Amino acid sequence: MNFEVCILGCNGAVPQKGKYPSCQYVRIDTFHCLVDCGEGAQFQMVNLGVPKHRIEHIFISHLHGDHIFGLIGLITSYLLAGRTKALDIFSPQGLEEIIKIQLQANGKFEMPFELRFHVIDTTTPGLIFENDILEVISIPLKHRIPTSGFLFREKQRTPNIDKHKLEEYQLERAEILKLKAGESVQNRHGKHILPQDVLKAPLPKRSYAYCSDTMYAPENIPILKGVNLLYHESTFLQVDEATALATNHSTAQQAASIAHDAEVGLLLLGHFSARYANRQYFIDEASQVFPNVFLASEGMVAKLEILDNKITTRLSDPA
Amino acid sequence: MNFEVCILGCNGAVPQKGKYPSCQYVRIDTFHCLVDCGEGAQFQMVNLGVPKHRIEHIFISHLHGDHIFGLIGLITSYLLAGRTKALDIFSPQGLEEIIKIQLQANGKFEMPFELRFHVIDTTTPGLIFENDILEVISIPLKHRIPTSGFLFREKQRTPNIDKHKLEEYQLERAEILKLKAGESVQNRHGKHILPQDVLKAPLPKRSYAYCSDTMYAPENIPILKGVNLLYHESTFLQVDEATALATNHSTAQQAASIAHDAEVGLLLLGHFSARYANRQYFIDEASQVFPNVFLASEGMVAKLEILDNKITTRLSDPA
Repeated sequence: MNFEVCILGCNGAVPQKGKYPSCQYVRIDTFHCLVDCGEGAQFQMVNLGVPKHRIEHIFISHLHGDHIFGLIGLITSYLLAGRTKALDIFSPQGLEEIIKIQLQANGKFEMPFELRFHVIDTTTPGLIFENDILEVISIPLKHRIPTSGFLFREKQRTPNIDKHKLEEYQLERAEILKLKAGESVQNRHGKHILPQDVLKAPLPKRSYAYCSDTMYAPENIPILKGVNLLYHESTFLQVDEATALATNHSTAQQAASIAHDAEVGLLLLGHFSARYANRQYFIDEASQVFPNVFLASEGMVAKLEILDNKITTRLSDPA
Repeated sequence: MNFEVCILGCNGAVPQKGKYPSCQYVRIDTFHCLVDCGEGAQFQMVNLGVPKHRIEHIFISHLHGDHIFGLIGLITSYLLAGRTKALDIFSPQGLEEIIKIQLQANGKFEMPFELRFHVIDTTTPGLIFENDILEVISIPLKHRIPTSGFLFREKQRTPNIDKHKLEEYQLERAEILKLKAGESVQNRHGKHILPQDVLKAPLPKRSYAYCSDTMYAPENIPILKGVNLLYHESTFLQVDEATALATNHSTAQQAASIAHDAEVGLLLLGHFSARYANRQYFIDEASQVFPNVFLASEGMVAKLEILDNKITTRLSDPA
């Protein structure tokens, strides 16, 4: 079952050659979503081969332009393509009005698909979406306007049966279902079999947290505790800590401190200010606090894989 | 004196790899403006080295997304950069509300520069802007929503004095000014001199017309008569004439017919549908009606030059 995050854009708000503002494509098995949707997101989806038409959910952290200006273009392209599947958009208050006034200006047309807006309470963590395989939890971030991070967490899956045990005990279908449901059974040879005799160890649950934009917010450490992958903004370096504070952003050191205290698996830094000539500075600074840190970059894919019942994050293009 | 048009984007509404929706940068001497502002316009300005901060005027043809979705991003970037110069935006009714609701969502800030919206009457041609060197005239286009094309036309400049004549007649400053103003003078040697004795032939006036988006609208031929450069949309080929009609767009043949009947200097085709595998088809079709036709492409620069008192358009990258 796939669990991957593709970086479409991780730049700060000031345009730079070859860079794109915040947007990520998150795929967890059959669940395809976007996290933020900065200008040019739909171009990056074409450039990077993201399956645009599979996306059914978009999670918007806040209404600053570098996180939303690509949304209306994407929705308009869905209209042109004759989309019929509903699209669910989760965001702080105010997005619906922005999108609808632009759709109205577009002139006469019937909306061929349902556009469902869901307003996030940005003051307290909460379950904002769930399906059979995952849940999405909002993370209250501290920024100039109401802002939410997102925690994507797999649900506990029903453990699989060990095929060798299945043959050894000569179990039938009805018996297997009972065992999976946690009941013990007696097989045709009269042997009493407990669930733990045949079930494999449950797979660990993978998790990914997105925290952008935010100032240093250690109150979120409990909710971030032990996530496998954390994307945290680091707009500034510590030398510009005062600017970070004044603009409600984080430094690389602060992001690393969150990662360290929350004991996350891997930290991906993003949302870089255009003022720094070399992004390696962010790694130099953060790695002193939290060593397993990488720079996000356009086109990078982070895959959360389970090997020997342990979760590791594999980066396609570690910068 | 420069007169040039740089194509930032000339794609139709459906995103394609490496293509951008409608946006052009027009420079006429010290006058710098944009014509339309599709998504990613500000990225293309970075990519192509367009002097973003010199732009003081933006002309928007209509409110379809592929012509305006880059505007809010550009304005937001001007805000971030601390712009103080006013920005004048000319468009059909409705743009101001779209921009303002998005600026409001951006949270607390003072607008450090004036954003002046000017509503174009799209039903009749009219002078919408002029300064010392040029005038901009609106062209009523026929599209699904109110749409305007734009004619950029140099004003007649005061003819220059022929330096050799100036020496020959030993003219003084006051006499030169009189001659330039159309008066005759008598020089120190008693010679009677007429303006035409010393003034060079006036330079021809250069002109550029932008017609996108529009269905075939021959009623605009008088206003387009003799323009040096015409950019005309050709979303479709003649084989899809019915679709062109249904969606209020033009075919390559129709664009060429306008160019032919208006006796323009050079025709640049743009706003191509994504449905055609090869854009050469547009040239094949149009050139049968109007031979001096080229495909617009991202990054192309068209320079209107005066050589031997004749105007020619030189394309940096004829496709």
